[in-house]
Amino acid sequence: MDFANYFPIYKNLTSEEQALLTKNARLHTFEKDTLLHNGSNDCLGLVLIKSGQLRVFITSEEGREITIYRLFDRDMCLFSASCMMNSIQFDISVMPETDTEAWIIPADLYKKMMEQSVALANYTNQLMATKFTDVMWLIEQVLWKSMDSRLAAFLIEESNLAGSLILHITHDKIANHMGTAREVITRLLKYLQSEGIVSLSRGTIEIIDFEKLANT
Amino acid sequence: MDFANYFPIYKNLTSEEQALLTKNARLHTFEKDTLLHNGSNDCLGLVLIKSGQLRVFITSEEGREITIYRLFDRDMCLFSASCMMNSIQFDISVMPETDTEAWIIPADLYKKMMEQSVALANYTNQLMATKFTDVMWLIEQVLWKSMDSRLAAFLIEESNLAGSLILHITHDKIANHMGTAREVITRLLKYLQSEGIVSLSRGTIEIIDFEKLANT
Repeated sequence: MDFANYFPIYKNLTSEEQALLTKNARLHTFEKDTLLHNGSNDCLGLVLIKSGQLRVFITSEEGREITIYRLFDRDMCLFSASCMMNSIQFDISVMPETDTEAWIIPADLYKKMMEQSVALANYTNQLMATKFTDVMWLIEQVLWKSMDSRLAAFLIEESNLAGSLILHITHDKIANHMGTAREVITRLLKYLQSEGIVSLSRGTIEIIDFEKLANT
Repeated sequence: MDFANYFPIYKNLTSEEQALLTKNARLHTFEKDTLLHNGSNDCLGLVLIKSGQLRVFITSEEGREITIYRLFDRDMCLFSASCMMNSIQFDISVMPETDTEAWIIPADLYKKMMEQSVALANYTNQLMATKFTDVMWLIEQVLWKSMDSRLAAFLIEESNLAGSLILHITHDKIANHMGTAREVITRLLKYLQSEGIVSLSRGTIEIIDFEKLANT
């Protein structure tokens, strides 16, 4: 399986556009937990995931983090190429959560193609609208959900991703996903443990009562 | 001044596209404080403001509100036509803050034109990226700024919009802008008053020390 099979609207491009993309997209392997893109410091290009998992997050001045969304196989990261649009005036960071194979598409090439191709411009619109939806969901969570129900939703998501009820994740990492402090997560996890919903041991969290967790 | 002078990329459209838009865009007058678009209940179309001010906000299940962004003369509201893109899966409401004159562009027409016109598709991309930037700013505010510095920023914005140090706004309205409860706003305003930064009276807030407010 090559680039043509992964790029979402490949068939809607002209043969010239297809050739340009295929020639310039470079397949890379990114190691787990190695920062792939960091704010406005670089303009990496668009990232099209062949296999793996990327975490897209923002960081406060004080170094606190929150996960904005995650990307999986066949997803494309637009905002790692923010230099291609003046109107994108915010900085994200991108970190692989597993070893990840991905194509990098140069931002200037994509920009030029988007200015010519109505298919590519409309695809980019859809991509941005999807991420906009994710971010609006996140705002609602942060504003209107309690921290314990957000933690419960996060643990369920992690469990689904891992395909296991035993999660290997530190309290610190959870805090970075959720935009809060480690102490808050530790306190909430202890509460969930006291309710018989999870069981905690060094470096792992085991979900004991999935249903009760889902109703938290 | 007519539609052609207000639609941002009018000159980049074909004469056929220009004619279609001009023919189908309808100029309306919307009264202050009368809901113009409410969530997923309708697909109003795109709103292009001739003159006035619109507030775009979301509402929680419990009826709490937060302002996402505001729109002014020549701004265009995209998400009041969310039906035109499947990927937009969130609901906003739109309310005029002053009497507002605006063109409504039918969503299905805009959608069809966007699928043909690379200029329009790219303009829509820029528009969405601008709003994405606003929303990312809001997330950072909500997550990482204290409520008193957010309130200070809001009062300064209001003062700039009104061109006055005396603001005619209720605590309830401020709470709806900021996604919090009225009691929180009242408490913070009383604190600002005790510091000699504002002066409160029925229905008005007067900014006494603008510099100190800006440093809150």
